[in-house]
Amino acid sequence: MSKLTRTSCTLLDNEDKLNSFRNRFDLPDDIIYLDGNSLGAKPKAASNVAKELIDQQWGNGLIKSWNSAGWFDMPSSLGDKLGQLLGADSGEMLVTDSTGINLYKVLSLAIKLRPDRSVILMESDNFPTDVYMAEGLIEQLGGNYTLKLVPGDEIMDALDDSVAAVSITQVNYKSGRMLDMAKITDKAHACGALAIWDLCHSAGAIPVDLNACNADFAVGCTYKYLNGGPGSPAFVFVAKRHHNKASQPLSGWWGHKEPFAFAPRYEASGGIAQMACGTQPVISMAMIKCGLDIFLETDMVLVRDKSVALTELFIELVESRCSDHGFKLNSPRDATLRGSQVSFTHQNGYAIIKALIARGVIGDFRAPDVMRFGFAPLYIRFSDVWDAVDHLADIMDTGEWQKDIYNQIDPVT
Amino acid sequence: MSKLTRTSCTLLDNEDKLNSFRNRFDLPDDIIYLDGNSLGAKPKAASNVAKELIDQQWGNGLIKSWNSAGWFDMPSSLGDKLGQLLGADSGEMLVTDSTGINLYKVLSLAIKLRPDRSVILMESDNFPTDVYMAEGLIEQLGGNYTLKLVPGDEIMDALDDSVAAVSITQVNYKSGRMLDMAKITDKAHACGALAIWDLCHSAGAIPVDLNACNADFAVGCTYKYLNGGPGSPAFVFVAKRHHNKASQPLSGWWGHKEPFAFAPRYEASGGIAQMACGTQPVISMAMIKCGLDIFLETDMVLVRDKSVALTELFIELVESRCSDHGFKLNSPRDATLRGSQVSFTHQNGYAIIKALIARGVIGDFRAPDVMRFGFAPLYIRFSDVWDAVDHLADIMDTGEWQKDIYNQIDPVT
Repeated sequence: MSKLTRTSCTLLDNEDKLNSFRNRFDLPDDIIYLDGNSLGAKPKAASNVAKELIDQQWGNGLIKSWNSAGWFDMPSSLGDKLGQLLGADSGEMLVTDSTGINLYKVLSLAIKLRPDRSVILMESDNFPTDVYMAEGLIEQLGGNYTLKLVPGDEIMDALDDSVAAVSITQVNYKSGRMLDMAKITDKAHACGALAIWDLCHSAGAIPVDLNACNADFAVGCTYKYLNGGPGSPAFVFVAKRHHNKASQPLSGWWGHKEPFAFAPRYEASGGIAQMACGTQPVISMAMIKCGLDIFLETDMVLVRDKSVALTELFIELVESRCSDHGFKLNSPRDATLRGSQVSFTHQNGYAIIKALIARGVIGDFRAPDVMRFGFAPLYIRFSDVWDAVDHLADIMDTGEWQKDIYNQIDPVT
Repeated sequence: MSKLTRTSCTLLDNEDKLNSFRNRFDLPDDIIYLDGNSLGAKPKAASNVAKELIDQQWGNGLIKSWNSAGWFDMPSSLGDKLGQLLGADSGEMLVTDSTGINLYKVLSLAIKLRPDRSVILMESDNFPTDVYMAEGLIEQLGGNYTLKLVPGDEIMDALDDSVAAVSITQVNYKSGRMLDMAKITDKAHACGALAIWDLCHSAGAIPVDLNACNADFAVGCTYKYLNGGPGSPAFVFVAKRHHNKASQPLSGWWGHKEPFAFAPRYEASGGIAQMACGTQPVISMAMIKCGLDIFLETDMVLVRDKSVALTELFIELVESRCSDHGFKLNSPRDATLRGSQVSFTHQNGYAIIKALIARGVIGDFRAPDVMRFGFAPLYIRFSDVWDAVDHLADIMDTGEWQKDIYNQIDPVT
């Protein structure tokens, strides 16, 4: 493997069965974009979809477009489309609101369905907002519930008959560590608990089959690997067996049985529709279709194979070409335990990421010392990985990262 | 007044100090759009704002745009801009999420601030989703609270020392009846209750001065008179005196004191920022600026004067030209008690609205018999009012509304 060259990477690109998909995205020529795990690249189709929506559907169709252009049905039509990718049946997924708000809904439902239990179990290194939402819910409920936080590798042992719901992010946002959805869900069920999966770093990155894993609930965002656009609405999955048993507390009119009857009191819609609350941001939501259409032309097995090959290549190259510079792999070395991102820790990670960005290599930094690099298989090439590491090696070998400008702290998203 | 003619209406248009603003909106030539109270017309600027955002900020700027293009600050920057229009100080308003979700947040806060009280008071003819959200909250809290629903004209009498919060829509969505914000807020405060105002049909339609009225909380949407685009995010106002006293339950990372520190536990941001929850739909949100920029060039006193003149004209013309056809005014006759919309009831209202829409006159229908017409003063002309009633009179005089096609029930938004 030490004989890797840029040419061998270009050969891999030529042989890549997914290589034509890159052309479906707009990417600046001077950028190597390794941050699709934070904000996915723009599908080319998005510009025209937005133009049609804004100029024709809004500008000309006006109020009529709620029906004629399918605006009102978008949460369920996009949910069904996304469900095909994530192993949900039609009518089990809805695109709506934000991931945090959807998590609040499913956490509320889960504890209603397990009235004799009082523990919500999460990973201590969960994406923080998932923890925050559970804290908000528990405080709202007067403190009769306990939020139990344990390290990711102790989740299985912590599952016992006190647990109402286990709520975990499948792929860790910092390390990229991937959990076994089927195994944890099985253990949860064996204990009588329900399993909630946050798929923010899974959807579009790895094959997901919610129903094959018997998942109870799932949430996630559409703006990372799914390329839905900045802050595009999130999704929520509720397995059919849990439908119509309880209603979630954000009981707005879009979740009503007859939203346009304007009935005086709430009556929850049957099925997934009751996870809806209020009017949705149509323009942002319409963008989501562009990315999903591309994914539905791919095969997630091929996507996963390429993802593994890209991350393996990145680790190999960083470790061989920057071996003297103190990078420590922060992701699982075993590819079967890793999502589509790789992180390294380095005490000067902040400055190094800034130096990379200045050269057009976009990764990101998470305190205190994590450098994250995401590899979106639909638009990242093997030669991009080579070039990114080439820049990294040069930045380290020349000491370029030591420049004052890279060591000044400013806001990082 | 019975000497009104189309020419006299055209003269009013020529004298109208706001008449140049119509040119800031795209409106189809063959449409008289009297539904700006449901979905506002498209500001011309919206097309280019979207194109810049999608092609440049997302497509080229990618993740960097969260900071460089001000995406992350949009909720507060738009909130401050909107605050200027609604009498909120800088730092008291945030644009985020949906109206229903924001109502849930402020209802939760209000009852926390009045721990010894158990009644939430609402108008029985409130926009239903406001009632639904209160029902969801109360059910979640285990039923220790009571939702008291009374007719709008009994709100003042129903305010007593059991009430934690009164939550009302200032302008009724069906009748257009406008409540006195200052008077009801004063009475609420005299009883020790808090006042929550839903401004969905007020913002951009009538002068609103939240702080002059000592309002405690407010919510509302941006897609009606404010022309923010289909489903554009909503706003939430919390008076400064209530900041930092309690946190709202949808405690996502955008409301954290240090969102990018990714701290393990929630700590609410100071000020209005803690009303935020998760990542916002940037493209839909960016559209809001276009409408607000137009409003900030106007004078809401002029807007109100024109609104009153338009609604007076409409009532006068319908009652004089369609006097034999059984229309009954469903809005207050006294303009000082009316928002910027007029509704009439008619037993065949559904068919009549459909016949009007077929002729390009867009109003809407609310069961069982309410025909609603909204008059957005920035783009509706006096001659539009004339033409709309001309069509209505003709549809009634000829019996055109009786056609089968107009009497078949289909979904109405």
